This record gives sequence, C-alpha cells and structure tokens, in this order.
Amino acid sequence: MEKITSIKNDKIKELRKLYQKKYRKSKSQFILEGLRLIRGAYKSGANLELIFLTEEYYEKHKTESFIINNEDKFVYVSANLIEEVADTNNPQEIIAVVNEPQTSIDEVLDKEYILVIDRIQDPGNMGTIFRTAAAAGFQSILITKGSVDVFNLKVLRSSVGAIYSLPFVKDIELEELTESFKESPLSIYAADLNTDNYYNEISYQKPLALVIGNEAGGIRPEILELADHKLKIPLKSNIESLNAGVAAGVIMFKIAEN
Amino acid sequence: MEKITSIKNDKIKELRKLYQKKYRKSKSQFILEGLRLIRGAYKSGANLELIFLTEEYYEKHKTESFIINNEDKFVYVSANLIEEVADTNNPQEIIAVVNEPQTSIDEVLDKEYILVIDRIQDPGNMGTIFRTAAAAGFQSILITKGSVDVFNLKVLRSSVGAIYSLPFVKDIELEELTESFKESPLSIYAADLNTDNYYNEISYQKPLALVIGNEAGGIRPEILELADHKLKIPLKSNIESLNAGVAAGVIMFKIAEN
Repeated sequence: MEKITSIKNDKIKELRKLYQKKYRKSKSQFILEGLRLIRGAYKSGANLELIFLTEEYYEKHKTESFIINNEDKFVYVSANLIEEVADTNNPQEIIAVVNEPQTSIDEVLDKEYILVIDRIQDPGNMGTIFRTAAAAGFQSILITKGSVDVFNLKVLRSSVGAIYSLPFVKDIELEELTESFKESPLSIYAADLNTDNYYNEISYQKPLALVIGNEAGGIRPEILELADHKLKIPLKSNIESLNAGVAAGVIMFKIAEN
Repeated sequence: MEKITSIKNDKIKELRKLYQKKYRKSKSQFILEGLRLIRGAYKSGANLELIFLTEEYYEKHKTESFIINNEDKFVYVSANLIEEVADTNNPQEIIAVVNEPQTSIDEVLDKEYILVIDRIQDPGNMGTIFRTAAAAGFQSILITKGSVDVFNLKVLRSSVGAIYSLPFVKDIELEELTESFKESPLSIYAADLNTDNYYNEISYQKPLALVIGNEAGGIRPEILELADHKLKIPLKSNIESLNAGVAAGVIMFKIAEN
C-alpha cells in the first residue's frame, strides 16, 4: 500500500491549496475534516473526490459502511503529514476533498419557500442559518456575493451537515438577484429594522422569498426596494438587535406555521 | 500621574487573577475589555470598580461623558502592560474590573416571564440567549450550576450588554431549583425533544418559567419531571436539532406573542 509522507507530494500540494477560498472556488471543491462531518456529507449524498487518512485510522474503522464503500477514493498518508495539513487543532486523521453540489439558480428559484442571504459575514451565523432553514422547511437558498464562503470549515461545522439538505447557489451578483426577483412570481419578504410591520402580524403568501441581510448593515437598498413586505421582530428591554441567526430562525419558524 | 509599568504590581496581579473563573467567583467581580463593552455596562448601571487604561487612551477619549464621570476609578498603565494582560488579540487599551450585580433568587422568581438555563456550555449560546431573552421580554434568568460562566469574556461579547438588562442568578444547585419550582405558582414549560407537543400549539399561562437545557443532553430529568408542559419545535429535512440559541429564541418569541 502506497503511503504519502512528503508535504511536496502533488496530491498533498493540491489538498493544501484547497484551504484557500480562492482555490476552492476555482476548483469547485471543498474540504471536510473528521469522520463526523465526512460521514454526514456522504450519507446526505455529497460527491466525495478523495479521502486522505492514515493506515491506523483505516484499521480502526474498516468495518464501517462509510469506509467500506469508499475505498476507491482513499489516499494513505502519514499521521505527521495529516497533522501538518489539517486546520483543526486535534486532527482526526481523516480529511476529504468534496466536489461542490451543482445547482442552477433556476432550480433554486422554482420552490415555494426560498431563503435569500445577503452578505452574512460570520461563519457561525451562516452555518446556523443553513441548519435552521432546512429545519423550518425552507426548500432552497440563494447567497449573494460578499457573504462568507459556505465551504469555510467553520460554516460547515455549525451547519451540522445541513448544507447537503437543500439546494443552494452562492456568489450571486446583486444585479442577477434583482433581475431574478423582478421576473419571478415570488412574494419577497425582507427583514429590516426600518419598518413598522411586525413579522408576526403579516400573512405570508407562497411562493415566497425571505431575505436576511448583513449583521451590521442589513439588506442592500437595491434588494429592499423590490420587497413586497418589510418586517421586523419587536424588541424589548432596549435591545437594539438580535443575533442574525436567531432573527432568521424566529422569522422562518413563523413562516413555517403557515 | 502615577503609571504602572510592572507586571508585578499588586493591582496588576489582582487583575490577572480575574481572568480565571475560580478567582472571579470568589471576588464576585469580572472583567470587560474595550470601550464598547465597558461603556455599555456603565450605561446599563453596572458597578465599575477599577478602569485600567493608558494615558494615550485617556487623551484620545477625554471628552466622552463615560470617561469624565469615572476618573476616580482610573489606573494608568503602560501600553505594553495592557497588551500583556488582555485576552483580546487587539487589546483596546482599556480594561475594567466590574462588581457582579447582586440579585436574590426570590427577586428572580417574582416575575411573570422567567427563563431557566440548565447547563448551557457554549459561551456564544449563553450570550445569545441572554440577548434574546431580554429582547423577547423575559424579565429574569436562573442559571444552574454547570453552565458556562456568565462573566466569561466570550459570553459578555455575544450578549452585547444584555446581561445588565435583566436580573439573574447563576450557580443554582439542582435541588435549590427543584424546591423553588415546587413552592412557586409558576407554570413550568420545558423544551424537550422527547415529547409530541409542539411549542406553537400550547397556550402559555403566566407567571411562567421556560427551561432550556444543555446543547447535547437537554434538561436534567429531576427538572423535567416538574414541568407542567414539555414542548418541542417541529423539524423538517431530517435535521435532528437546532442550535440552542436559535431554539430558545424561537420559543421565547412565540411566548412573547401571548
């Protein structure tokens, strides 16, 4: 069995490049570390390209169906090497290269409950919003350019696998989004602090798109002006805003009651 | 003007000890770093004990009312020293020692909307839950022993000042909580995955206590068995659970609609 031990090996060089956002984008691939995330992705139908692991790791897990069914993708490496490459502090001796799911904007727009994310910056918020959207029954997600990379490891961890649960398109340009909105039959609902309409006093008409904006700046005006309804959550105790993930959750589950 | 430059100075030694949870607890004090957090605490009525800052920092901000009104608490230190002591990567040249708010369990229980937190572990979740509870109109919080320290800097940052917005008691022993529940007129609502009752199909009777449990293990059975109502959030797309902060937010804002 061939085992890679050198950081100069071509496969390792390629793997290390994928830790940079720019390179992930050009290759349409991303990285998962650790069995829990990789197995979750596999079970949800993710398209695994390569799996780097140590022989010791293989021996310990070889009776698992996930391991049995993916042997053709294995690349054996030394423990030192995997530790050097991995992002996690306690590397779990297994790293996968995954091909991005390919979804068209038309496919995403052809749903009844669509979430639109405009420039969310925090990886934890992005992952949490994915997880919550899937749980609330939203069926697809559009993400504008300027948002944190969905395939950032922190996002993947906080999404707890939810990014495989529903189709999404990322890096949407502002103009592409506004043109799509103009042409679509969607009712557009926009979360916005500058309105007097409360989220729980609106009747929601599907097919709908709910737009959630940047943590500090909210939704861009070009998108806001296309909204059929602006809405906000009433806040007490002089609290000025909610965490973006919580705000999105409160509104999405209100919509789910419909 | 006296300026401390040595890490062996007694005031600096005391300050450094407060970065340990054990010491914070025995002194009933905690630390805030950076103008935004300290000013927010001051405006919300926090009891500031000492403020460590550099002369340069003072010169830059001396026209601010917060600075003018707290000069009696100032301790001038060198920039190197504040950088060595501070937890933040980009120290903001100002650190405050704050006295813990003193609240009795009876005061916390004498409200109509009470949140009970049973062993929440993640600092981000704890801070977010505080912020959301205040925003949703909850009036007090009980926190059981085994939860993350509320005065942990990460909690304080994600609470965005909300810990000064409502009275709370922490480190409640399990037995103290269950005895309080038995003696109180509160209706107890417990978020629990093992129930068929949905949170949006229950009528909420005040005075009430909503109990939120540990991220992985939920609410302890001794508390659960005192609940008048167990409730859960319906989840789609095979999502097994929500982030604890999101789940708490969805339920608290549902209760706030009452």
